Amino acid sequence: MKKTIASGNRASGRLHLGHFQLLKYWVTLQDEYDCYYFVADLHALTTMYQDTREVAEYSRDILIDWLSVGLDPERSTLFVQSQVPAHSELFVLFSMFSQLGRLYRLPTYKERLREDETHSLVTLGFLGYPALQAADILIYRAHAVPVGLDQASHVELTREVARGFNRLYGNVFPVPTTLHPKVANLSGTDGRKMSKSYDNCIYISDGPDALQKKIGTMFSNPERKRRSDPGDAEKCNVYEFHKCFTDAETVVRIKAECADASIGCVDCKRILLENMIEALSGPREKRKRLEADHAYLDEVLRKGRERACIAADATMREVKKAVGLL
Amino acid sequence: MKKTIASGNRASGRLHLGHFQLLKYWVTLQDEYDCYYFVADLHALTTMYQDTREVAEYSRDILIDWLSVGLDPERSTLFVQSQVPAHSELFVLFSMFSQLGRLYRLPTYKERLREDETHSLVTLGFLGYPALQAADILIYRAHAVPVGLDQASHVELTREVARGFNRLYGNVFPVPTTLHPKVANLSGTDGRKMSKSYDNCIYISDGPDALQKKIGTMFSNPERKRRSDPGDAEKCNVYEFHKCFTDAETVVRIKAECADASIGCVDCKRILLENMIEALSGPREKRKRLEADHAYLDEVLRKGRERACIAADATMREVKKAVGLL
Repeated sequence: MKKTIASGNRASGRLHLGHFQLLKYWVTLQDEYDCYYFVADLHALTTMYQDTREVAEYSRDILIDWLSVGLDPERSTLFVQSQVPAHSELFVLFSMFSQLGRLYRLPTYKERLREDETHSLVTLGFLGYPALQAADILIYRAHAVPVGLDQASHVELTREVARGFNRLYGNVFPVPTTLHPKVANLSGTDGRKMSKSYDNCIYISDGPDALQKKIGTMFSNPERKRRSDPGDAEKCNVYEFHKCFTDAETVVRIKAECADASIGCVDCKRILLENMIEALSGPREKRKRLEADHAYLDEVLRKGRERACIAADATMREVKKAVGLL
Repeated sequence: MKKTIASGNRASGRLHLGHFQLLKYWVTLQDEYDCYYFVADLHALTTMYQDTREVAEYSRDILIDWLSVGLDPERSTLFVQSQVPAHSELFVLFSMFSQLGRLYRLPTYKERLREDETHSLVTLGFLGYPALQAADILIYRAHAVPVGLDQASHVELTREVARGFNRLYGNVFPVPTTLHPKVANLSGTDGRKMSKSYDNCIYISDGPDALQKKIGTMFSNPERKRRSDPGDAEKCNVYEFHKCFTDAETVVRIKAECADASIGCVDCKRILLENMIEALSGPREKRKRLEADHAYLDEVLRKGRERACIAADATMREVKKAVGLL
């Protein structure tokens, strides 16, 4: 029998190229694993509860991105978290033995809270974020979780929750491992972490014009000030993008030509732009068709919810039996 | 249209006479209101998660107590909390805007935590207890909550949650009022608060032998040391029980005879014992029949769950629309 994986994207914004790399990895896992991919709209609410107007739009947009890069609703179960009640049910059971101190100490929690100037995140929901994530994963009894490195501490908590439950009530959950894809380390156009809040994202859905503008103004290696200065590709964000979008041979050549200043940033970026437009043209075409086909999207979500509910409800029956509920 | 009420009993022990008074009040509300009464087994887990062996038994036992005192599954919706997933779903949404500080400051939280010597209650679930209770009540859009005085601060939180949700997302919930029944203030047999943890409870299911033993050793007025001392009924726990189980005329007489020492504690308790055996004999007979009829109990719970799910799911649809989920 196939092993199971589960992962998701938070419905708090459009998906950018950081996500794109992960999605392409998800696509490669579809035959080897029984895949559950969910739009985490409840997790979006942890930070957006005061203004939820865009959550549904982001949710639909994420589904379109998924389909446009090649996630296949016949092979993978694609669905929206809030449409499968068992996620919340399992979260409530996990909350019973989730120690507050452990949640307060998570580095991701402390980091986000430091940036929270209006104290809008000092809520039960935001503190419970990683316990809900544990429920998202374990409700499908996933063996592995394909996520970016930034999620490592949350998957570690999920592993603890699985062990904790099994110790208290008997062996219901596998302890999932993390699958980190080998990906380029893409920063935002200003050199900082790519993030909606920094307004420095390149989105999967960006068209040629947007790409041209963003690549044109993208930070490269700040140490290479003049065209005639030799560069160091390893210190250049543009070079990271080349690793992701340019063929291996050209990547090697560009690195050498940057080092002896035989290629300038403008030409280097032009090559990148062409390759990115090319790489994103397939998804963009597909997105255009999907955006017009509401009936198909609804049907994908309906089927996904149905399949997810069957698996999740089966787990909840086991869980309730193990805990000893009536 | 009838107004709606919702209330429950925590499945953390058998029901005692404190509960009995509340249940008799619930019984009187069945025609005037659309009643949702639930066995709060999830709430039981907040304190019993380390040893859950008795939760299912307590749940069934509470249902039997309900039926034996006259709750009618045809008129009221009787069900088990964990069997209606929407309670957990709504709790998760409430958690998003539930401020941690507000939960930490609840007197009931601080009180229980002080008694928690092993720190087993420093969990997300125990902190979230009153937010889950808010979900239990509001998922049925209850207009009123018939509970004991000890629950007043939790209903106040429920009212805040309802107002908070309505302010953020639009008017979905009524702000429920509290219905406190006028009841005698029954202490445990040792004079302290009647509580399983003090081993001083008189249970609804106690038979004549148990009652005789418990009433016989019950603290009365400690100031009345000898038979010939005049007593003060208002300071006597036995007198509180009389208010609950003895006819009004006799209650007046006993108070006077206590004051002039013409009745002693032994005789006073003998009258009480007779009346209690009599008052509890109906429920006890019915309990005996119910305990043997598993099929009937299962059917009551199945119907209750079905009815509760229909109402709760309808609320969740409104809630998700208001929040703006897909």
